[in-house]
Amino acid sequence: MSEAATTLDGWYSLHLLYNVDWSSLRLVDNHREMVEELQEFLNRLENNHRNQEGSYAFYNMTGQKSDLMLWMLRPTMDELNALELELNKLRISDFLEPAYSYVSVLELGSYLAKDSAEDPYQNPFVRARLFPELPRSQYVCFYPMDKKREGNDNWYSLPMEERRRLMRDHALIGRKYAGKIKQFITGSTGFDAFEWGVTLFSDDILQFKHIVYEMRFDEASARYGVFGDFFVGVKLEVSDLDSFFDVQG
Amino acid sequence: MSEAATTLDGWYSLHLLYNVDWSSLRLVDNHREMVEELQEFLNRLENNHRNQEGSYAFYNMTGQKSDLMLWMLRPTMDELNALELELNKLRISDFLEPAYSYVSVLELGSYLAKDSAEDPYQNPFVRARLFPELPRSQYVCFYPMDKKREGNDNWYSLPMEERRRLMRDHALIGRKYAGKIKQFITGSTGFDAFEWGVTLFSDDILQFKHIVYEMRFDEASARYGVFGDFFVGVKLEVSDLDSFFDVQG
Amino acid sequence: MSEAATTLDGWYSLHLLYNVDWSSLRLVDNHREMVEELQEFLNRLENNHRNQEGSYAFYNMTGQKSDLMLWMLRPTMDELNALELELNKLRISDFLEPAYSYVSVLELGSYLAKDSAEDPYQNPFVRARLFPELPRSQYVCFYPMDKKREGNDNWYSLPMEERRRLMRDHALIGRKYAGKIKQFITGSTGFDAFEWGVTLFSDDILQFKHIVYEMRFDEASARYGVFGDFFVGVKLEVSDLDSFFDVQG
Amino acid sequence: MSEAATTLDGWYSLHLLYNVDWSSLRLVDNHREMVEELQEFLNRLENNHRNQEGSYAFYNMTGQKSDLMLWMLRPTMDELNALELELNKLRISDFLEPAYSYVSVLELGSYLAKDSAEDPYQNPFVRARLFPELPRSQYVCFYPMDKKREGNDNWYSLPMEERRRLMRDHALIGRKYAGKIKQFITGSTGFDAFEWGVTLFSDDILQFKHIVYEMRFDEASARYGVFGDFFVGVKLEVSDLDSFFDVQG
Amino acid sequence: MSEAATTLDGWYSLHLLYNVDWSSLRLVDNHREMVEELQEFLNRLENNHRNQEGSYAFYNMTGQKSDLMLWMLRPTMDELNALELELNKLRISDFLEPAYSYVSVLELGSYLAKDSAEDPYQNPFVRARLFPELPRSQYVCFYPMDKKREGNDNWYSLPMEERRRLMRDHALIGRKYAGKIKQFITGSTGFDAFEWGVTLFSDDILQFKHIVYEMRFDEASARYGVFGDFFVGVKLEVSDLDSFFDVQG
Repeated sequence: MSEAATTLDGWYSLHLLYNVDWSSLRLVDNHREMVEELQEFLNRLENNHRNQEGSYAFYNMTGQKSDLMLWMLRPTMDELNALELELNKLRISDFLEPAYSYVSVLELGSYLAKDSAEDPYQNPFVRARLFPELPRSQYVCFYPMDKKREGNDNWYSLPMEERRRLMRDHALIGRKYAGKIKQFITGSTGFDAFEWGVTLFSDDILQFKHIVYEMRFDEASARYGVFGDFFVGVKLEVSDLDSFFDVQG
Repeated sequence: MSEAATTLDGWYSLHLLYNVDWSSLRLVDNHREMVEELQEFLNRLENNHRNQEGSYAFYNMTGQKSDLMLWMLRPTMDELNALELELNKLRISDFLEPAYSYVSVLELGSYLAKDSAEDPYQNPFVRARLFPELPRSQYVCFYPMDKKREGNDNWYSLPMEERRRLMRDHALIGRKYAGKIKQFITGSTGFDAFEWGVTLFSDDILQFKHIVYEMRFDEASARYGVFGDFFVGVKLEVSDLDSFFDVQG
Repeated sequence: MSEAATTLDGWYSLHLLYNVDWSSLRLVDNHREMVEELQEFLNRLENNHRNQEGSYAFYNMTGQKSDLMLWMLRPTMDELNALELELNKLRISDFLEPAYSYVSVLELGSYLAKDSAEDPYQNPFVRARLFPELPRSQYVCFYPMDKKREGNDNWYSLPMEERRRLMRDHALIGRKYAGKIKQFITGSTGFDAFEWGVTLFSDDILQFKHIVYEMRFDEASARYGVFGDFFVGVKLEVSDLDSFFDVQG
Repeated sequence: MSEAATTLDGWYSLHLLYNVDWSSLRLVDNHREMVEELQEFLNRLENNHRNQEGSYAFYNMTGQKSDLMLWMLRPTMDELNALELELNKLRISDFLEPAYSYVSVLELGSYLAKDSAEDPYQNPFVRARLFPELPRSQYVCFYPMDKKREGNDNWYSLPMEERRRLMRDHALIGRKYAGKIKQFITGSTGFDAFEWGVTLFSDDILQFKHIVYEMRFDEASARYGVFGDFFVGVKLEVSDLDSFFDVQG
Repeated sequence: MSEAATTLDGWYSLHLLYNVDWSSLRLVDNHREMVEELQEFLNRLENNHRNQEGSYAFYNMTGQKSDLMLWMLRPTMDELNALELELNKLRISDFLEPAYSYVSVLELGSYLAKDSAEDPYQNPFVRARLFPELPRSQYVCFYPMDKKREGNDNWYSLPMEERRRLMRDHALIGRKYAGKIKQFITGSTGFDAFEWGVTLFSDDILQFKHIVYEMRFDEASARYGVFGDFFVGVKLEVSDLDSFFDVQG
């Protein structure tokens, strides 16, 4: 019989990364109307976030892999699907080229759970992880990952006790970064190409390098971690969008 | 001598995934005529489905990997080939960019078969799997997969008895999701890049994550499963296509 | 010293796969002239085929990976090179997007050869394999493949006797499909990215799945086979090309 | 507990590689104005470099993978992010196609560190590596790399002492090239797809081949090195940009 | 300490592969002027070749991976860089799409060297390999390759004596093809994605298949060879370029 750890699942999650087509945007006489339409869209996400009916984060990514990342959280996949369609139809989207996307759901693994009669979904700590108010930190880091299944390094063949031990050690490293980094795990098994997405927030971008590097020596990562691409970016204020998209100077 | 399990084969299968080119679609004055043409095409699929001469499913996919998935089932590959050509020639197809496709045939493995004198193709359970009426669930999940052939983890070198045991354990997990998920397996060895395609339907999208995650700990998957990309989506009604494609608001 | 099996080599081989750019083709007022030019090209291939100075096959492929496959066989690579250039210059080629190509030469491995004083190139069976009249079956299947060289699974490190035994077992499976499938092997070591191309013809497309699946359990494939992508299609008559390319209805 | 070597981190780093779209550039009547705008941008990088508030390097790359590489160093990621946005908005950027980029930070591993009470950031040798004045050598070589984590070859599972020994041997080879090659290591764990970027400068391009080839036999590389693509180029003077971009002769 | 074999290095090398954009070329009224410009460029390469100050080869490649390959050799990378820039600015280049390129340097490994006091660069045999007059054979074959570093199959961890033995056996096979094939090895460690490029010339294209297939059974290749893509082509005379590019018939 399988020994899958059960997971607690929260809001559904959609990471959307785009590159701006600056050459085409330059040909547009007045980009302001398009930007206002996007700002209205983001303001609605902001209202939803304030009402704690979902959340979002919006960043200007560094490097050529993408220019913008919008991360949206909602109680249903249908809402994310509708928001993506709405975004696709905004006029500014004619100048946004899809770069990468990730479909997942906020998740809390039960490896660390205390046995208790308590309904975990009533636990405030759990609720803050599954239905979070995403922080407005200066920097973001996003990467998808898998657990390895190769030869003797097969995470899914390990006994539950061994996986629990490894995840506990792994979590100890995470705790050292409390106050410096806010970490959100989304599960994507059955939803997207990797098994998990990790999204980190910090006001000190160097902390992303330190935590990921330190964890790489931890057995759970060293032996079993398979990492996708890494994306980092700097906070982009909705009020700065007009100058961000202004390519005519 | 080889010990291949024989398979029962049903309708031929074609998954077609597309992205919508919203920027170009915005330039079109009246998209309604094009949408009606697509609706007529889908209505013919619906009639065919009602006459049980084939089936189909149509979904709005989440994330940038694709916007639409049309899954079509028919008694012959020639019909699928002709339908694909017909679809390519619809005017709306000028605005649909191919994202992924999968050529296969509905299949029932014989690992679990009872020995009997009965013609399995007359068995109603078998017929419902090989010549199905696809459900109209709210969510779909599609992914292709292989069985691994690497070093000591070589599915195709295992004795039949061992493969049968592993598939039995695997099926036990599947049964736990009866009533929550409808699963269809299509075989694609010799037809497409992977060996199988798995298409799941549910009215609770979280069940896709739970079943795939739980199965990943099962030896058949943990040690021998090789997974392609995962695609999920939300049901799109033919009657909603006009507003779906309306990019001018 | 090396123990390479010597091969018998026949006609040179070029598989060309294309996708049709339907959106652009729709903009063309009269496609008939272009189609006639292509039909003249194919008629010359047909004449060459009837004169047994080469052969060809032409199929409408299923799925988004390609729409058309033209397979051409000739006594010299120079002729194939010239035919490809000629094809590239046909007006219809403005609407054909390269999807995949394969450069190889028809080959007969010597693993199964009887020792004899006979010149194998005079043997009628050998000639029919190396200088064939390609069949006009309803379906085609094409895939490239390698023999594995990984760790303990290294085909090229096996002694000749072991390779001969494995190929004999492999051939036994092939024989079971005599009368159902016609198989052509082209060698591409030094010519293209894989070592062999396999092209199968049948009037029952399901036979492609059965033979490839059954062979996958055979040690030669299970342990040593590395497969590229698989492409399947339905015969396209030259006389049907006008309606095939007619996108305006 | 983890045994991660701590690192010293210096300026943030952004490698930007581009291909020139010569066909489109040919259509532009007067490219001089665009080039002057780029030269002003590069002159500001030069001023920043002279004031030791950052640095940069600018090369004409060889081969089709890219035509230009701009490497920029700054005290904050925010500055690099802003510079990239500024560059994207230059008119010449309409003719620069992104080819590859790398986000990282100048780093000095502590494997070789002497134990001392000294603040390493005050050490002049350390400062020259972390806050460097990039040389104006005739040639550049850039490549990203990882340390392997496969089966028995798992760098991150080695004890610290073993890693220290391997890095010492590795460094001995590097020292043989002192005076011939200037090497800069940037760490990208958590920032980009690989763990390190290596950028080499020399007035003798053959030295790049000799050092990388010699190091490949060193255990740290032979067993644990995983290399991305390699990019080499020739120095491009800002004053030569007008003739570089002049496609009309 | 490392045991890298030292290499003898000759002329720098740049392989440039292109596809012709026939659809766009068809729209050009008079292509002759563009072709003449390319012919002038190639004539200058021919003069340089005759003066033994470099060399080049020009082929029409078979299959969709590329239409043309230009291989250029020069005493400095700067010259190759300048030639590539010059080529990019030719008007015909608006119709040449980059398909693949390779940056390397002609190399002679020292595994087979006799110990001697002689300066190898004065040896006529060595000079003919490092500073060659490239042949004008009817066919060319080009492929990049690596030596494997995986588990127990790690070329760079073998003792020098073992590598020398393997290379000697490997060379024995090569000698069997003397008179049939001319082989040139270029080293690209530190310059491009693979470690070596192999370029073969012959008037009998089948020899490429025979030598690569026979070598694949040799331990140096069977166990340690990692091959990139293979490209083959037919000689294209500069005087035939006008008809080659004439797409209007």
